[in-house]
Amino acid sequence: MTPWCLDIGATPVTGGVHFRVWSPLADSVEVIRCARGEEASCPLSRVGEYFQGTIPGMGPGDCYWYLLDGTLRRPDPASRCQPGGVHGPSQVVAPDSFAWADGQWRGVALEELITYELHVGTFTPEGTFGAAVERLDYLQELGITALELMPVAEFPGSRNWGYDGVFPFAPHHAYGGPDGLKSLVDACHRRGLAVILDVVYNHLGPEGNYLHAFAPYFTDHYRTPWGDAVNFDGPGSDGVRHYVIGNALHWISEYHLDGLRLDAIHGIYDFSAGHILRDITRAVDSLARHLGRTVHVIAESDLNDVRTIAPPESGGHGVHTQWCDDFHHSLVTLLTGERNGYYADFGLFSHLEKAFREGFVYSGEYSRHRRRRHGSPSGDQPPRRMVVFSQNHDQIGNRALGDRPSTRLSPEQLKLAAGAVILSPYLPLIFMGEEYGETAPFPYFTSHGDPALVEAVRRGRREEFAAFGWEAEVPDPQDEATFRSALIDPELRSVGWHQQVFSFYREVIRLRRQLPSFRRPEREEIQVTGLEADRVVVVR
Amino acid sequence: MTPWCLDIGATPVTGGVHFRVWSPLADSVEVIRCARGEEASCPLSRVGEYFQGTIPGMGPGDCYWYLLDGTLRRPDPASRCQPGGVHGPSQVVAPDSFAWADGQWRGVALEELITYELHVGTFTPEGTFGAAVERLDYLQELGITALELMPVAEFPGSRNWGYDGVFPFAPHHAYGGPDGLKSLVDACHRRGLAVILDVVYNHLGPEGNYLHAFAPYFTDHYRTPWGDAVNFDGPGSDGVRHYVIGNALHWISEYHLDGLRLDAIHGIYDFSAGHILRDITRAVDSLARHLGRTVHVIAESDLNDVRTIAPPESGGHGVHTQWCDDFHHSLVTLLTGERNGYYADFGLFSHLEKAFREGFVYSGEYSRHRRRRHGSPSGDQPPRRMVVFSQNHDQIGNRALGDRPSTRLSPEQLKLAAGAVILSPYLPLIFMGEEYGETAPFPYFTSHGDPALVEAVRRGRREEFAAFGWEAEVPDPQDEATFRSALIDPELRSVGWHQQVFSFYREVIRLRRQLPSFRRPEREEIQVTGLEADRVVVVR
Repeated sequence: MTPWCLDIGATPVTGGVHFRVWSPLADSVEVIRCARGEEASCPLSRVGEYFQGTIPGMGPGDCYWYLLDGTLRRPDPASRCQPGGVHGPSQVVAPDSFAWADGQWRGVALEELITYELHVGTFTPEGTFGAAVERLDYLQELGITALELMPVAEFPGSRNWGYDGVFPFAPHHAYGGPDGLKSLVDACHRRGLAVILDVVYNHLGPEGNYLHAFAPYFTDHYRTPWGDAVNFDGPGSDGVRHYVIGNALHWISEYHLDGLRLDAIHGIYDFSAGHILRDITRAVDSLARHLGRTVHVIAESDLNDVRTIAPPESGGHGVHTQWCDDFHHSLVTLLTGERNGYYADFGLFSHLEKAFREGFVYSGEYSRHRRRRHGSPSGDQPPRRMVVFSQNHDQIGNRALGDRPSTRLSPEQLKLAAGAVILSPYLPLIFMGEEYGETAPFPYFTSHGDPALVEAVRRGRREEFAAFGWEAEVPDPQDEATFRSALIDPELRSVGWHQQVFSFYREVIRLRRQLPSFRRPEREEIQVTGLEADRVVVVR
Repeated sequence: MTPWCLDIGATPVTGGVHFRVWSPLADSVEVIRCARGEEASCPLSRVGEYFQGTIPGMGPGDCYWYLLDGTLRRPDPASRCQPGGVHGPSQVVAPDSFAWADGQWRGVALEELITYELHVGTFTPEGTFGAAVERLDYLQELGITALELMPVAEFPGSRNWGYDGVFPFAPHHAYGGPDGLKSLVDACHRRGLAVILDVVYNHLGPEGNYLHAFAPYFTDHYRTPWGDAVNFDGPGSDGVRHYVIGNALHWISEYHLDGLRLDAIHGIYDFSAGHILRDITRAVDSLARHLGRTVHVIAESDLNDVRTIAPPESGGHGVHTQWCDDFHHSLVTLLTGERNGYYADFGLFSHLEKAFREGFVYSGEYSRHRRRRHGSPSGDQPPRRMVVFSQNHDQIGNRALGDRPSTRLSPEQLKLAAGAVILSPYLPLIFMGEEYGETAPFPYFTSHGDPALVEAVRRGRREEFAAFGWEAEVPDPQDEATFRSALIDPELRSVGWHQQVFSFYREVIRLRRQLPSFRRPEREEIQVTGLEADRVVVVR
C-alpha cells in the first residue's frame, strides 16, 4: 500500500513498537521505556550499523530514551515527537493514525505556486498550527496557492525562527506536534492550498543536539558559519544521507507535504560523486510519482550556481526551483537606495533588468561584497526555476531591528514591489503580513536554555550588524518581548493605507492566476526591455 | 605574436624589467634589487589589487626581493627562478630567450599517449634535466610517446618528490632551472616525445611558502591533509585563480609543455559556480588552439567522479583524462593477494573485469575502506579518458619501504601486468625503471631545512604506515641515503630476467603503437568478457 516507510525511529507494530536506530559508535543500545513514572529497559540487537528490535506492550504515546553503552541516555535522533522539548524523552507516534480528509488532493503545479511564507509562532497570537488553521479563510481570500512554513522541527525552548532545530523528524511540541501539523496540512488541502516546509539540512542547532553519540553525523572537514558541517561525504556518510533523505520523504509521506524548501544549500558540503541534493530530489520525485502527487524541491542558495536547478542530464542537481536573492536585492536597492552590506553589489537599473531577463544578476561578474567573481548564467533556465520576493523572513529579520519595508516605503512603493514580484515571470513568494503592509518587525528571536549560548547569540547578532554597517541597538533575541513584537495582525488590512495595499495584492494575485500569460511563461515568450530614463522595465 | 603572456612576476622589457605582483594585503611594495653585493629599492605603484612598475637598468639574471610595507622581504610568488632555493631572492628570467628547435612540433594525440613517469632527481645519477636528456635515446628505444615529470617547481632543499613545491613558476635550481627544463622539452620534441608536467594546485609545501603576506591565497574554510586549502572560492579568490591559471598557461607557453597532470584534485575545493578545473581546462584548450598544438589536461583524482572528465555540455569539468586508481588496485590485488589499507576494497576477479569494461570499479558501491558509497559510473566515457598503470610513484612510494612490484612478483607476473596495462583500451602509464624490473625502491624522501618539520614528516610517515597495517621500519625521509636508494639503473635491462621483461615491454608498446585497434579504441567497439575460472579477462 504505502510506497515508502521510514525505517528508523519508533514504529508501532502489532502488539508493540519496533525501534531502529543508526548507531555505529555504540557497542550496545537499549530502549528505556518511561511509563507511569516507572522505567524499564530492553536491549536492541545490532544489525550492521543499526540497532533494532520490537518491544511488546509499548504503543503510541509512550515515551522512551535510548541508552548507549549502558551509560548515555539520549533521545531518538529520528524522534517523531519531543513532548517535553529537546532535552526530554522521545515519544512514540503512529505515523498512519491521522484521519486525513484530503484523499483527492494532487498538489499544485510548480508554475502555479504563489507562496505565502509564515512563521507559525508569530502568525497568530496562539502561535500554533491549530490557530493557523483559523486563518486559512483569510489566505484563501488573499488568493495565494501555497503556504511555506518556516522550520517546525523541534528546537530548544518555545521561541525560535526554527533554524536551530535538533530533531528533524519532530514538529515542535509548542506548535502542536505531529497531529497539529497534520491538521493544518489537511485543512489547507481541503481549501486547495499546498503546504511547503522549510527544512534545514546544513547543520543542527547548537542546543539539544544529541546526535554525536550515535554516529558520525558531522564532520570538521568543512566549516559552516553555524558549526560543524553535516557529514554528507566522509566516512560513515551513507547513514547520514539515509537519515536526511528519510527525513525529506517522511514529511511528504506522513505529513502529505507538497514541497520542501531546503535551507541554505551553500552550507551543504558534498564533494562526493553523487551530490546529496540530486539524491534528495531524485528520491522525492520517485515518491511523488508513486503517490500521484506533485511535490516540489526548492533550494535556498547563495551560490548563484545554475547546477542547482539544471536538470541531471546537463549535469545539474535537478532541484525544481530556487530562491533568487539577486532579484530581491536589485528591486529593493532601487526602491530604498540602501547600499550597505551585500546591497553594495546592487543598485543599478540594469541589475533589475537582468534579474527579469535571466534570474541571476551575478552570473560570473565581480562582486564587491564577496571580493570575487560570482555566479553562473541562468538565462537558459525556464522562469519557474526561480522564486522571487520583495520580502522574506531573512531579508527582514536579518536587519538589526527586523524592520519591514512598510516602515520605510510609501504604499505606492510597496505596491510597485508587489507588482514586480507577483506579475514577474518567476514564482512569487510573499512574507506573512506583507500583503497589507504589516508594520510589526520580524527580529531574530530565540529561547535557548543555555546561558552561555544566549550570550553568544546576543554577541553574534551585535557583531553581525556592526559588520553590515547598521549601528542601531539590536533587540535582545532572548527577550520574550522581541518575539512578541513580531506577531502580525491581519486586522490591519482594513485600516487606512493598509487597505489599499491589501486590495492591490489581492488584485495582482488574481491577475496572475487568471491570465495564462502570467501563469506559465516560457523564457522564449518573454521580452524584457529596460527604459532606464523612465525607470521602467517592460516585461511581455 | 605570442597568444598569451604571463602578466605577473618579472618580465624583461626594453631597458629594464617590468614587475607586477598581486598584493592586496600590502600597503606598499618595493622591489629590492640585489646586484654586485649592493642593494637598491624601487617602489611599485598600486593598480587595483596589484603593484606594478618598470625598473630601468635591470635585466635577466638579476636577483630581487619584494619589500612589503617597508618591512617584509619576500621572494616573488610568481618567481621564474630561485637560484638560491626557497628562502633566497628571485631571479629575473627572460621567458623568450631560449633558442627552441621544435618549431614543427604539434604534440601527441591523447589516444597515442604511452606515458613514462619519471622523477628528475633519481632518473639519473646527476639528477638533472640535462642528464635526463642523455637518456632520451633509451626512452625512444623503449617506444613510449610521452614523459611525465614529477613536479619540478622549486621545493625546499635539493631532494623531494616535488609535492612540497612553493614556487609554482620556478623549475628547481638543482634540476637545472628554467633553461634546463626547456632544453629537456626541446630535446624530447626533436625525438617525437611529448612532455607532461605534474603540477600541484591543491596546496603549497610547508616550508618556504611566502605567499601569505601578499594575498589570500589560502583558506581555512576547508581542510586538506596537507594544511590550509588553496582559496579557489572565497573572498579574494579571483587573484588566486588568475595565478593558478597563469601557472598552467605559462608552462605550456614558455616551456612548450604538452600536458599538465593536476595532482590530487580531491584536494582542490571549489564550491563556486564555475569550477577551477573547468576554467583551467578551458584556458589550456584555448591557448593550445592558438598555438596549434595538442595539449592535455590530466587529473589525478580520488573522487571517482565522472564529472571530472565529462564534457562541459553534460555538466562535467571537461578535463581530458584522469588517472584510474581502481584499475591499478584491481590488477595488483589479484597479482599480489595484498588486502591491507585501500586494497581492502579490491581483490575480486569481477573488479578487474569491471575496470576493463567501465573504468571506475566503484561507481556508487559501498567501499569498506572509505566507509561510505563511492563513485559514479564511468562506462559511458571513451576509454581515452582514463590513464592506467600497474605502478606509479605513489603506488610504490607510499608503501613503507617504497618497494617495487619487481621485488615481490615473478617476471611472468610483471609481464602479465605490463600486458594488461599497455594493451588495455585506456592510456597506459609506466613508472621509470618498471620496464626492466628495476629493483631499487622509490621511498619517500625530503631535504627540508626546518628541524621541526623534518621530525613531523618522519612521525607522519610512521603513523601513516601503522594505519595501513605495514609495520616494517620506514626509511628516514630526510636521510640522503633514502633518496640515493631510489636511483634507477637502466643498465640492469641487459641482465638476466630483466632482459626478458624489457623485451616484453618493448614488444607490447610496439604492438600498441602499430595496431590501430589498440590505438584508438571506442567503448562500443570493446567487448570485455571475464572467464573467472580461468582468471582471464578477454578484451576485444
